[in-house]
Amino acid sequence: MEFNKHLESIKTYEAGKPIELVVREFGIDPKDIIKLASNENPFGCSQKVQDAVSKIVKNMALYPDDSMLKLKNALAKRFGVDIKNLIIGSGSDQVIEFIVHAKLDEDSTVLMNSVTFAMYEIYAKQVGAKIVRTALQEHDLDEFYAMYQEHKPSVIFLCTPNNPTGDAIDAKSLLEFIAKIDDETLVVIDGAYMEYAIAKDASKKITPKEIVDRFDNVIYLGTFSKAYGLGGMRVGYGVASSSIIDALYKLRPPFNITTLSLEAASVALEDEGFVQESIENNFNEMKRYEEFASANSIEIIQSYTNFVTLCLNKGQNSSQLADSLLKKGMIVRDLSGYGLNAVRVTVGTPAQNDRFFELTPQFL
Amino acid sequence: MEFNKHLESIKTYEAGKPIELVVREFGIDPKDIIKLASNENPFGCSQKVQDAVSKIVKNMALYPDDSMLKLKNALAKRFGVDIKNLIIGSGSDQVIEFIVHAKLDEDSTVLMNSVTFAMYEIYAKQVGAKIVRTALQEHDLDEFYAMYQEHKPSVIFLCTPNNPTGDAIDAKSLLEFIAKIDDETLVVIDGAYMEYAIAKDASKKITPKEIVDRFDNVIYLGTFSKAYGLGGMRVGYGVASSSIIDALYKLRPPFNITTLSLEAASVALEDEGFVQESIENNFNEMKRYEEFASANSIEIIQSYTNFVTLCLNKGQNSSQLADSLLKKGMIVRDLSGYGLNAVRVTVGTPAQNDRFFELTPQFL
Repeated sequence: MEFNKHLESIKTYEAGKPIELVVREFGIDPKDIIKLASNENPFGCSQKVQDAVSKIVKNMALYPDDSMLKLKNALAKRFGVDIKNLIIGSGSDQVIEFIVHAKLDEDSTVLMNSVTFAMYEIYAKQVGAKIVRTALQEHDLDEFYAMYQEHKPSVIFLCTPNNPTGDAIDAKSLLEFIAKIDDETLVVIDGAYMEYAIAKDASKKITPKEIVDRFDNVIYLGTFSKAYGLGGMRVGYGVASSSIIDALYKLRPPFNITTLSLEAASVALEDEGFVQESIENNFNEMKRYEEFASANSIEIIQSYTNFVTLCLNKGQNSSQLADSLLKKGMIVRDLSGYGLNAVRVTVGTPAQNDRFFELTPQFL
Repeated sequence: MEFNKHLESIKTYEAGKPIELVVREFGIDPKDIIKLASNENPFGCSQKVQDAVSKIVKNMALYPDDSMLKLKNALAKRFGVDIKNLIIGSGSDQVIEFIVHAKLDEDSTVLMNSVTFAMYEIYAKQVGAKIVRTALQEHDLDEFYAMYQEHKPSVIFLCTPNNPTGDAIDAKSLLEFIAKIDDETLVVIDGAYMEYAIAKDASKKITPKEIVDRFDNVIYLGTFSKAYGLGGMRVGYGVASSSIIDALYKLRPPFNITTLSLEAASVALEDEGFVQESIENNFNEMKRYEEFASANSIEIIQSYTNFVTLCLNKGQNSSQLADSLLKKGMIVRDLSGYGLNAVRVTVGTPAQNDRFFELTPQFL
């Protein structure tokens, strides 16, 4: 049977190996496996969220409130925007999917950074859009602007802090850049790790409110998967002008997040203490990765996230390192698929990081 | 900002009103609201599932095992198929979305019943496909075949039992029909309510195994949202030849169901007792709806599902009935949007149905 021709060019996204897979492949006891590959919150999620979800497990039989008003009200209050400026997705991934299907087709172009979140390309390929990428590894807004003028993209993806490298764009420069983009180009600011960046350096801070107040052609993406510790619940959001939100809503399937996810995300916003503690722990532990990199003469990219990217030297091989660690039950992300001789490591709990520092030197 | 032109023709899906909305709109106490509008399982979900999910709420921070092997193995065993014949979606809705995006575009045609599940059309419009519908209210396979020959559709949707009418296609005739369809046309058998049909009448029984064994161009869809009582967890599946599954997999976003949903669905398959009891209760209570319809001279469509469709008489108005019931806290589905002067009512618990029988006559 033949399928649409766009499918031929799509490569399935390779997620960080789940613990279950390592158990199966290597016969390692689950309790001996440490996964630092998917930038989950190593401190889990808020106890308040766990309690709230436990209380409503009976409701698994009931479809969620498809208006998602409780969650939207909480987000609107948090960000100082109106609920008409909000759309909820099954992870911010799904909002990316809506954006691509609403704005791109085989006659249009999308601009993104050389190294960035893989799903931008995967979704763009689903609709056959032309993908253009910068040459530089970090987001360089001058390069972005030159390529914008040359290619007239319908969508520009900016990931700040960037995944999988961890660096972040200066907020003032970013807003100046956006101001130069014409109204027909949709600019996406993917702030999946923004909570971390804000805590580390105020000059990286982009707020949904300033985006909505100033621009009709920009969407800000956020997620509950990282700092809020709800990666398994698949809840993200987009904040934008109501004209953008209305268009994306047409592509939103009903009931796109679960009843328990809706409750989890709503309650997570009430426990900012958990988030701030996670972030504080994260940057304390990150210092140890910086020391480790320095002690082992490895380059580490300055990170504004909950992960670090270790760029290996010539003679070292990121795929081999990741494989060797995997056989010891330590899962990290090899970035060779992104054209980098580097591994991305989620900053874990102190004990998880201890194990990384203990295991890794023997494989360098 | 301009968006892709297909969006202009898309109408957002109107889900059954959630209890939360009725609380807000009419100020009715949530405990006084009865929702018989979304064909959820009125008996909730299995206690075993609730217990299993409660045990792993900590894991909300962790992405699900994206291979979904535990659930796929359980489904494969249940249906006697290989895991390569399976794809899991966020509800069977999402598998419908994959099908549409894999097989349809603005140059192709999709054939569906005059009255059927609304999402087929909504997804088809997202890609600008030409939609053709039969004239008859029940699936008539002769009519389908004539229209297939005339329109050469790339996809044919068959919903059995059909939503929102409840009738089901004879299995033998259905298989004979499929055998006459050429290999390039993808036939979708949506069996969201099949567990109910099988319990009522073996002649309606379509099994995923016979589909996979006999046909390369057919996909069977099932869901955990109805008989398994997990509507809020968003888990459905497609069973088909590996060539179809491979193509759909290219459109599947990673982590498309939650960590808790994966556990819930896997455990739900271990508690067939709950499902069978739900179904038995359903058909016992359905008899009362048949008696009610007869006593009130209303036509009821013979139903193979967990809902009944009551076709009102001239002078009665389904929208008015649904509105009147809503103000009393009873939510049913008005089918006027489908061109029918009818209401669809989920068969509820005995107490819920009592309330329907008590309230409704005054509004007829």
